[in-house]
Amino acid sequence: MKKVAVILSGCGVYDGSEIYESVLTLLAIEEGGASYQCMAPDIDQLHVINHRTGEVMPERSRNVLTEAARLARGEIIDLAEADPAAYDALIIPGGFGAAKNLCDFAITGENCEVNPDVVRFTQAMNKAGKPVGLMCIAPAMTPILFGEKVSFTIGNDPETASTIEAMGGSHQNCCVDEIITDTEMKVVTTPAYMLAGSITEAASGIRKLVTQVLEMA
Amino acid sequence: MKKVAVILSGCGVYDGSEIYESVLTLLAIEEGGASYQCMAPDIDQLHVINHRTGEVMPERSRNVLTEAARLARGEIIDLAEADPAAYDALIIPGGFGAAKNLCDFAITGENCEVNPDVVRFTQAMNKAGKPVGLMCIAPAMTPILFGEKVSFTIGNDPETASTIEAMGGSHQNCCVDEIITDTEMKVVTTPAYMLAGSITEAASGIRKLVTQVLEMA
Repeated sequence: MKKVAVILSGCGVYDGSEIYESVLTLLAIEEGGASYQCMAPDIDQLHVINHRTGEVMPERSRNVLTEAARLARGEIIDLAEADPAAYDALIIPGGFGAAKNLCDFAITGENCEVNPDVVRFTQAMNKAGKPVGLMCIAPAMTPILFGEKVSFTIGNDPETASTIEAMGGSHQNCCVDEIITDTEMKVVTTPAYMLAGSITEAASGIRKLVTQVLEMA
Repeated sequence: MKKVAVILSGCGVYDGSEIYESVLTLLAIEEGGASYQCMAPDIDQLHVINHRTGEVMPERSRNVLTEAARLARGEIIDLAEADPAAYDALIIPGGFGAAKNLCDFAITGENCEVNPDVVRFTQAMNKAGKPVGLMCIAPAMTPILFGEKVSFTIGNDPETASTIEAMGGSHQNCCVDEIITDTEMKVVTTPAYMLAGSITEAASGIRKLVTQVLEMA
């Protein structure tokens, strides 16, 4: 059975992993006959957002790994201790946490830096010829992770696309129910909640992404 | 289009709503051609559990409505302000939050009391002849909500079942991929993560529950 690593960035669209994208990913992995292991970096979140109001909450920060454990029902490991050799593929769901905790794209834009453990794990998978799927805003990391020639999508927002392209790579506009596959790099991306207006819309592209990643694994 | 009210109890299996159950419910509602509105009580959680370790976290409590907003991408309303007349059906996912925040079954067992807004909303739906679905441990509330004659399931755990039956009602053993339907009361229950060993197992029963609830609505 193929085993997929899933890197989470917290629990909640505005400061962590987008919950629907993450759950739909796990469901599609199992429905595709594979298994998964969730993992996350053991670092503080950039901040905590009140998801009811959209405002920053005046509490001390939450830990990315501890909050991501909610999304994994406690079955999660520290990304720093994860062995790329143990997995056949990697998927990174979106949510602002991908751009705030896994990297700092939400703050620095084209000067983005990616968490060293995310870099280590993802590049090891890539160098071993294993497929990597990224959704929503997570593809903002693709030029740093995979080099200047990567093709990817974050949907169709020209400003976001051009900010990412300033780091390298080629953005392709893409509908919510479609995927962009860079067959040479084995990188698969889909817009998910960059475009989705409903959970079924998000599910359509995510199912295609997971299917494509499992086929390439 | 039928509209389903979904009462959440936080965000995370050990102190709030079970995330997979909640997301799979929303997905099944939309895939069934209906729409949903998430709602939750504006109260403090009983406590905050570190989902990585299972231990109580030494921070001040989190708010049920604010944390449930994570599961609803911010699109949530205060249960106290929800109008039962605006909905065709009600579904309550499980997770310990259902037994810690929506009622106190996790603490008091058969002496359980249910949050007054949960009582008000649920009984209004029931009295209007609208179906109510409950999953996982949430059916512990059924004798209080629907009276002593209700049939329900929480899976097959004899101790939990007999504690609930001490409040009234008739527990039926049920597999993870099946549902128990009380056709007279219009109450539908499924074990979900009381028994599920995987997200696809949970999905199987939840899809049947949502289908049955929508058919009765």
